[in-house]
Amino acid sequence: MTTFRLRCTECGRESPEGPRALTCPDCAALQEPGGPVRGILEVVLQEPPGEWPSFDPADPRFLSVFLPVREAGSFPSFPAGCTPLVPAKRLGAELGLERLWVKDDTRNPSGSTKDRASLLVAAKAREYGLDTVAAASTGNAGTALAAVAAAAALRAVVFVPATAPEAKLVQMLAYGAEVLPVDGTYDQAFELCLEACREFGWYNRNTGLNPYTIEGKKTSAIEIAFDLGSRGPDVVVVPVGDGVILSGVAKGFADLAGSGLIADVPRLIAVQPEGSAAISTAWERGTEDVSPVPGAHSVADSLTVEAPRAARLCLRRIRETDGGAVTVTDDEILAAIPDLARSTGVFAEPAAAAALAGLRTALARGMVRASDEVVLLVTGSGLKDVPAAAGAVRRPEPIDPTLDAVAARLGS
Amino acid sequence: MTTFRLRCTECGRESPEGPRALTCPDCAALQEPGGPVRGILEVVLQEPPGEWPSFDPADPRFLSVFLPVREAGSFPSFPAGCTPLVPAKRLGAELGLERLWVKDDTRNPSGSTKDRASLLVAAKAREYGLDTVAAASTGNAGTALAAVAAAAALRAVVFVPATAPEAKLVQMLAYGAEVLPVDGTYDQAFELCLEACREFGWYNRNTGLNPYTIEGKKTSAIEIAFDLGSRGPDVVVVPVGDGVILSGVAKGFADLAGSGLIADVPRLIAVQPEGSAAISTAWERGTEDVSPVPGAHSVADSLTVEAPRAARLCLRRIRETDGGAVTVTDDEILAAIPDLARSTGVFAEPAAAAALAGLRTALARGMVRASDEVVLLVTGSGLKDVPAAAGAVRRPEPIDPTLDAVAARLGS
Repeated sequence: MTTFRLRCTECGRESPEGPRALTCPDCAALQEPGGPVRGILEVVLQEPPGEWPSFDPADPRFLSVFLPVREAGSFPSFPAGCTPLVPAKRLGAELGLERLWVKDDTRNPSGSTKDRASLLVAAKAREYGLDTVAAASTGNAGTALAAVAAAAALRAVVFVPATAPEAKLVQMLAYGAEVLPVDGTYDQAFELCLEACREFGWYNRNTGLNPYTIEGKKTSAIEIAFDLGSRGPDVVVVPVGDGVILSGVAKGFADLAGSGLIADVPRLIAVQPEGSAAISTAWERGTEDVSPVPGAHSVADSLTVEAPRAARLCLRRIRETDGGAVTVTDDEILAAIPDLARSTGVFAEPAAAAALAGLRTALARGMVRASDEVVLLVTGSGLKDVPAAAGAVRRPEPIDPTLDAVAARLGS
Repeated sequence: MTTFRLRCTECGRESPEGPRALTCPDCAALQEPGGPVRGILEVVLQEPPGEWPSFDPADPRFLSVFLPVREAGSFPSFPAGCTPLVPAKRLGAELGLERLWVKDDTRNPSGSTKDRASLLVAAKAREYGLDTVAAASTGNAGTALAAVAAAAALRAVVFVPATAPEAKLVQMLAYGAEVLPVDGTYDQAFELCLEACREFGWYNRNTGLNPYTIEGKKTSAIEIAFDLGSRGPDVVVVPVGDGVILSGVAKGFADLAGSGLIADVPRLIAVQPEGSAAISTAWERGTEDVSPVPGAHSVADSLTVEAPRAARLCLRRIRETDGGAVTVTDDEILAAIPDLARSTGVFAEPAAAAALAGLRTALARGMVRASDEVVLLVTGSGLKDVPAAAGAVRRPEPIDPTLDAVAARLGS
């Protein structure tokens, strides 16, 4: 049994865990409607492990050492995480990096890194004896919740903006979630989910609000350090929408450093698309105040948010790790899809390919050096958004079924 | 270094390995154009392992013990396989089975079980010093080849019928394959690929023709037996198009039984769609002669073939394992998509969901008993064919962003 406290990332006040423990009561009073979440809670393990567990990382007992669950049996049979850290030698050589890796989180059960957070949230819902989990989502988070709920025999209610992308919508429906397309913005869906959870007693997985979303996402950092042999790389490049994934990665490395399992914490570099750049803009301006971006838009739907919920925490983690933030264009994101796939065999959705686009920018600006060991966190599968990838490749014309036609086409 | 021979599955004649060794020269003379492949070669390891390797299954050294490569270093960095064996208790209870598992091969790098075969073919191409690999494919095989070629820095040429499904086409283009859409049928693409490989000296990965496609696919059986603790289940249900996957699964269990690593070989049950049922029809008729199905059609594009290439071998393996074959309708296949996803958290493309539809039929016919331990081989991700899944779920209407609207919709 892992014992732990919840600590406010702003005022430091501690509070007990529980099905209604979402944000710090004191700081939440400062919350502005639609603004960044105030008083995000982080988990503090009472007895962090002083050495690596003897279990395989795929064993739920491995996870239970690092995550705040009562027992390994709290986790449903949903093998999230344990994704490969793929060496990207050719891509590295092309970029002038000797040591480049891809953390291939496309290989999660529902195809995105959000499965990590949903797995922990489902485990906690089971511990709290709640049978319904709910979330507002533009796509991947809701899909991940629907998938783990199916595996855990929980009921999932997902609030999506009525404009959610087709593949993600179909996928969450196939998993059997009760999907509520909301005539309104993501922000309205977020608030509606919050109200509905209070009213109906559902467990709220809203990202940035539920403390276990950050905590669940830290497992990618733990796996990276484990696979590298008890150390972090120099740099991890993370696509950023609301800032929760980067905050989770930071938490993972911080936990490991705090336990003495790694010596140094990597620099975290956030990548945001031009049309949804609230956090990277604030970082460039050197301010802690994040201005929402009304009408945010990008080909990377998973990174498109008007008001990033974990913006304040994410900015702090970037600074604390001596990292940075960059902004990339939609064209750069689209070009990065075949760019990454051709050189590594990893097919990413736009939000995930943005990591590579951002690395190019960070290299050009000297934020990453040739001697740095770099990990790209590739957060979601290219199959999540085939239309976007279709716009990034050239479609060949049909040929006649003859050898001459083959020779003519290929210039053989 | 693993030493091995190639042995004809029809006449038993042995031949040496090599970049041109595809089928048995004697039996190939009996080949009819567009008919099942005659003289398919299987790999016979000279020194099969007498015990499980001490390496982790994710370690290429584990694979190199079971597969015919010179050394573990022949494999490119392409983490195919090592997919989870997920307990499906709820689905099992619903079906009256106490022990039901899903072998979740949707979690391969390119999203399908074909990655296993392509990984071995790429390793052999590297060993033979060939820089171009080619295949004819309706989708997943070509995509898998494109993906592993990207990881291995090989050139991939993929011949597809011009009608290939959008997602698979876009995916293989993103991986950088040279895709040749052929104005003609899959059979014409198959023959054209064969000619082009001869003419240009490319390595031919055509399924059923290249002996390493069957051999590569055997790794799913090895992982199942490993995860179950050195034993096979009673039954494995396998979706069947050309018959290569089932033949590969049979080879894996046969190798393990031959080595004494498992006691019994499971019964293999083939599932084919009604509109493309050459093998299941032959099995029901008790004949070895497989009649092609002109104009074969099914919602499960990966199972749609006019003339299944490995039909003869597949039928023999079904009989040898005391297995069987069933035919399912397109409606049953489509219904199985949400059926599987809701009860297990595994989202499958139509061809893969067919395994569940087939299990229902096999249970109804008494081919599978309640006491049997059953594994469903789920061969490809639902994200490969979102339009099919969209037809299998009910799309909810948008609601207003109010609590009343939520309550009204859910009847809370």
